[in-house]
Formats: sequence, structure tokens, C-alpha cells
Amino acid sequence: MNIDGIPTRTLRAHPEQRAIDIIDQTRLPHALHWVRVRTLAEAAHAIRAMQVRGAPLIGATAAYGLAIAVAEDASDPGLAQAIAELGATRPTAVNLHWALARMQALLQPLAPAQRLAAAWQEAEAIAEEDVAQNAAIGQHGLALFRQLQREQGRVLNVMTHCNAGWLATVDWGTALSPVYAAHDAGLPVHVWVSETRPRNQGLLTAWELAQHGVPHTLIADNAAGLLMRSGQVDAVIVGADRIAANGDVANKVGTYLKALACADNAIPFYVAAPRSTLDFACPDGNAIPIEERDGDEFRLVHGLDHHAQPAAVRQLAAEEAVANPAFDVTPAARVSAIITERGVCPASREGLLALYPEESRD
Amino acid sequence: MNIDGIPTRTLRAHPEQRAIDIIDQTRLPHALHWVRVRTLAEAAHAIRAMQVRGAPLIGATAAYGLAIAVAEDASDPGLAQAIAELGATRPTAVNLHWALARMQALLQPLAPAQRLAAAWQEAEAIAEEDVAQNAAIGQHGLALFRQLQREQGRVLNVMTHCNAGWLATVDWGTALSPVYAAHDAGLPVHVWVSETRPRNQGLLTAWELAQHGVPHTLIADNAAGLLMRSGQVDAVIVGADRIAANGDVANKVGTYLKALACADNAIPFYVAAPRSTLDFACPDGNAIPIEERDGDEFRLVHGLDHHAQPAAVRQLAAEEAVANPAFDVTPAARVSAIITERGVCPASREGLLALYPEESRD
Repeated sequence: MNIDGIPTRTLRAHPEQRAIDIIDQTRLPHALHWVRVRTLAEAAHAIRAMQVRGAPLIGATAAYGLAIAVAEDASDPGLAQAIAELGATRPTAVNLHWALARMQALLQPLAPAQRLAAAWQEAEAIAEEDVAQNAAIGQHGLALFRQLQREQGRVLNVMTHCNAGWLATVDWGTALSPVYAAHDAGLPVHVWVSETRPRNQGLLTAWELAQHGVPHTLIADNAAGLLMRSGQVDAVIVGADRIAANGDVANKVGTYLKALACADNAIPFYVAAPRSTLDFACPDGNAIPIEERDGDEFRLVHGLDHHAQPAAVRQLAAEEAVANPAFDVTPAARVSAIITERGVCPASREGLLALYPEESRD
Repeated sequence: MNIDGIPTRTLRAHPEQRAIDIIDQTRLPHALHWVRVRTLAEAAHAIRAMQVRGAPLIGATAAYGLAIAVAEDASDPGLAQAIAELGATRPTAVNLHWALARMQALLQPLAPAQRLAAAWQEAEAIAEEDVAQNAAIGQHGLALFRQLQREQGRVLNVMTHCNAGWLATVDWGTALSPVYAAHDAGLPVHVWVSETRPRNQGLLTAWELAQHGVPHTLIADNAAGLLMRSGQVDAVIVGADRIAANGDVANKVGTYLKALACADNAIPFYVAAPRSTLDFACPDGNAIPIEERDGDEFRLVHGLDHHAQPAAVRQLAAEEAVANPAFDVTPAARVSAIITERGVCPASREGLLALYPEESRD
């Protein structure tokens, strides 16, 4: 995608310098600031502090973080320690563990001296696959949007939650990939952008949609139900941090409420995610760990970092008890369809296995 | 209720000075600032700018505002103009129109010279009735809470949305009146306080609960569903801005999403409101006007007034398209019960008429 008209990805690799550049997303949309990541500690910090966020981008960053770690220490204990450190950064997004497991499976059998080149190559493969898979999600989603728009005969109003756009991936995005595909294909589309408290990732979505010229309107998370009841929403599409084997979906907290409102108003609720987000080893949503984040971030001013907050807000953060779960689980029964790089399927074990027969244990 | 241990109401009348004092709620919880209202224009501004908010308090303030206006101009045209100006401040809360209609019915037949004393007397009656009715709501709600707590056998976890506490009324509150009654009766109760974007009235709720020593935890609006699904919520109780004759409830935007999550998790969803919030002339929720407020307020820092916002936030407000509906409608079928000063009834025409048989047209 583009920033100010210049093609860009969210992650730039510099294998020769054993470093990557990432966008510090905690400073968007107010400032576009690239950060160089040169050490394992910096990579872990980038994920934990949400400089990078979004399940697919977390996975790719972890892969490159491991490649950076191998440059520091390619020994068996070094590898194990780096995987443990990166794996502990965030619990819910399974792409993190998927990427680390894939890197480990490749690197473990190799001699330490061979690991460095292989690690950078594999991280690049993971990043490139993410781009290709998200582009495919865009085309599958576009087919659904085309049909909905034909039925409506007017501008298609799509609602999303959090940011599952190109900022959340290496490129294209998951939930927003079909939106970009639709816009590029000339399909008239408008996006309702949910603010997504407490971290306000909706502002990232608004920013990247604006960069691409897609019409959109920012709303409070609370307004989703009213807009649906008044016929102003034709579809909701979100990304995912983990999809269990039965089709239950963990995604940014608040997703479940939107799915309920869709069900109550006969509006399709789509989840878009690549293979790396599917956790066939996880039986259902009850088995997905839900990250509890610091209460301080609850009162972040939109997209501004903590230190830029007014004193009164900082003071309040210290005074009030806050609960801050970062994700929730939407039961499979409330999901109209899952869109992956292989196509569209019902949110069920059978649906997912029809797309991924190689995961069947029979 | 108390501020810093000193008994206080939200509105202090000074008939001899033809003025009232109100708390500027846009500055809470950061500063407790009383404002003197001496003119019709100041009264209208206080309601429009949400210095006073909450359907019952809006009604009482409008009544006193009319008394202040009569002191300026007690003529027939003056009365009509004041009623029109106050009535145009906010469209959704019916208590505003109820209070003005009641004042008008009393004052219109009187000679202009008799109107001043009568207006102040009637405004005081409206305020006193609000206090008494809210206290009665507290006792009816307490009976429900007692039963729930007996069933649970542990601390009762009650969730609320927006602020329907004593700040939203002349005293006691509507939704929070049963909470205070429970706390005062020694029933162990903890309140989940929903932030309530975009105006963050949840911070008002947290502040007044803290003043009264009631245990509570602030959450993002988005977290409501997860907490319900994980068994951490025993009941949701909210106020209302207007209840239609069929039991449909207009309340702060986001209420409908909480009602859906209650239904999906078999959690009771209660609406607490005095008679002045019931609109028997309004057939159902579709007939309730929903206020669209300025997009600027969407990005207010918690409780801080607009001018205290960081420059980056102010700039953003100017750049992004924002939709900002202030209320939504929860269908009667999603409401477990309505609690009024007369008791508890099903959310239906029959239920409401059983409590208010004098409203039956037969």
C-alpha cells in the first residue's frame, strides 16, 4: 500500500545489517515514525509495547526478531531463549507462536553456523506469504461484497472494528483487504470505523483508509448497534487474533458485541484471516488465553503516547481501578463466514477442514 | 448524597435571587465547579452544553430555567418563547418536555403577576418529587438485588452504562439508586462502570460511587461482552432518556449492545426510570428522535473540556468525518424489567399500564 502516494510495507528488512525497520504505530496517526530494530530485546519490546500490532504483523516481526537473535547467538540455548522471550510477549495472537514454531522447525536441525542465513530467508518467506495470502483474502472477500452491493444497489456500507488493515499485516490487511479490492475495482464502498477503545486502533484504520482514498466515518464503539438497527450497515468484517478449530474467533475486545448486533439485525458478520491465525490444536474459544493489559493504557488520548497525556488524565489513571481485557471471543454460531486465502467457509470444524483437509486427523 | 462527606444535591435553588447553582459536569471528575444560572440563556446553555445531563436532572433544570425566565418576562409571549427555547435544547430526553408541559399547564391560566411565585414553587415540587421517586426506585431495585445476591451467594456484580446516578438526577439517581440502597443495606455489591464514549460519563459514575464508598471498576465499553460471557456480571442496570408506551427504551448510545449481550448470556437487564421518563404518547422506539451531537466532542479527553485537549487531538477532530449519535433504542423484548417509583413491571404496554392505570385510554 501507499503512504503519501509512495508504495510501502509495514516492515522493511535489512538482512545485511541484521536489522528491520518498523513503523511505531503508537505514534500514528499523529506522526509517522520509523524505528530500527537491531536486537532481540528491541524486537520483543516492539511487540509487547504495540509498536507493531495486528496478528499477522506480530507473526512476521517475531520471525525477523528470531533472525536478529540468531545473529547475536546462534547456539541451541540462544535459539531456545530467543523463542521463549519472543513467545512471551503477547498471549492471544496465535500467529506469534505459529511463526516461531515454523522458524524453530527449520532452524533446530541445522548447525548453528547455518542458522543465520536460513533464518533471514525463512522470515522473508513468512512475510511474502503474508502479503500473497492477504491479497487472496481480498479477492475472495471482493466476491462477497460484489454480491451484497448488487443486492443493495447503492453504496456498500461496511463496518469494521480495530485495525485489520495493511498496518496490521505486512501488506494489504485481512479485514480491509476486501475493502481495498472493492475500492480499486470501482465498487462504491464506505467504511464505518469503530474507535476501538481503549487503544483507539480505529484511528489507524481511518488513517490508512484516508491514505488510500476510501470514504469512511469514525464512530464510537457504542454507536455500532444504532447504525445497524437503522439500516446503515450492510456487512461487518473484522480480522482475528486466533480462530479455534470449531470456528470460535478471538479478536479485539468489542468484536463479540458487534457480532451480536449483526445477528439481531440479519447483517452478515465476516472474519478474515490467513492460515497462520487458525489454531487447529485449540478446540474452542474457552481454550484461548485472553490478554489483560495495563489499566494505564485505558485512558490513552487518541493515538498519543502515554507521556503526551494531560496531567489530569495521568492522575486519574493512578486513582481508578480499571479492568482492561484486550480481546474477546465470538462464538462460531455468530460468525456468518470465515474468509481465508483459500476461500470462504462456514465458521465450523467442517467448514475449516473443507478448506484445509491436510489438518484432518482421520 | 455526599461530596467529600457533606450532603449535597446536584441543584441548589435560590428563589430570592432568582437563580440556581448547578455543578458543571463537563469539568468532573477533574474539578468540582459550581455554576450560577441567572438567565434563560444560561439555563438553555447549561442543558445544551451538558453542564447538566441525565434525563431527570435536565427536566428539573428546565423547570427552574422557566422560573428564571418568568422573572425576566412573565408575559404570555415571554412564557411561550422561554418554553420553546428550553424545549429545543435536547431532543431525546422526554423529561425535558414533560417538565415544561407541566409548568406550562400551571402557569398559562394564571395572570402574569401570579406566575413568578407559582413557577418557583412548581419547579421545587418537580425537584422534590424527583428525589422521592428515585428513593422509591432504590427500594424496589434493592428487592431485586437482594434476590439475585441470595442466588449467587457472593458479591453481586452489577454493570451500568453512562451515568444514571445522583449526578443525573436531583438526588439518588435512577439506575444507581438501587446500588446505593444495596450498599447502605450491607449487601455486598461491586459495579462495573462502562466508560461511555464519546463523552466518558462513566468517569462521573466512578467518581460518585467513590464518593459513597461503593467498590467499582472502570472498563472500556467494548469489554462488556467478555465480562458477561465469563460469568463476571450478575445484572445490568441503566437509566433511560425516554421509554415508549410499548416498553422500548431510548438511552445512552451503547445501551442496546449491552442488552443484547445480557440476552445472549441469560443476565437480567433492568431499566430504572421515574414517571417523567415514560412517554405514553410515543407508540414505540421508532418514534423517538435520536440526537446527533457534534463530532468534536467525540474526541474529548476524559472529562476534560474541549479547550484542554492536546493540539494533536484538536487537529484530528477537524480532519476526520465523525458520526456521533448520542442515544440508541433497546427493544422492549430485550429488557427484563422496568423499575419505576411505583414498582417493577415487564417492559410492555400491559406492564406499564398495570403500574399507571390512569394512563389507560379505555
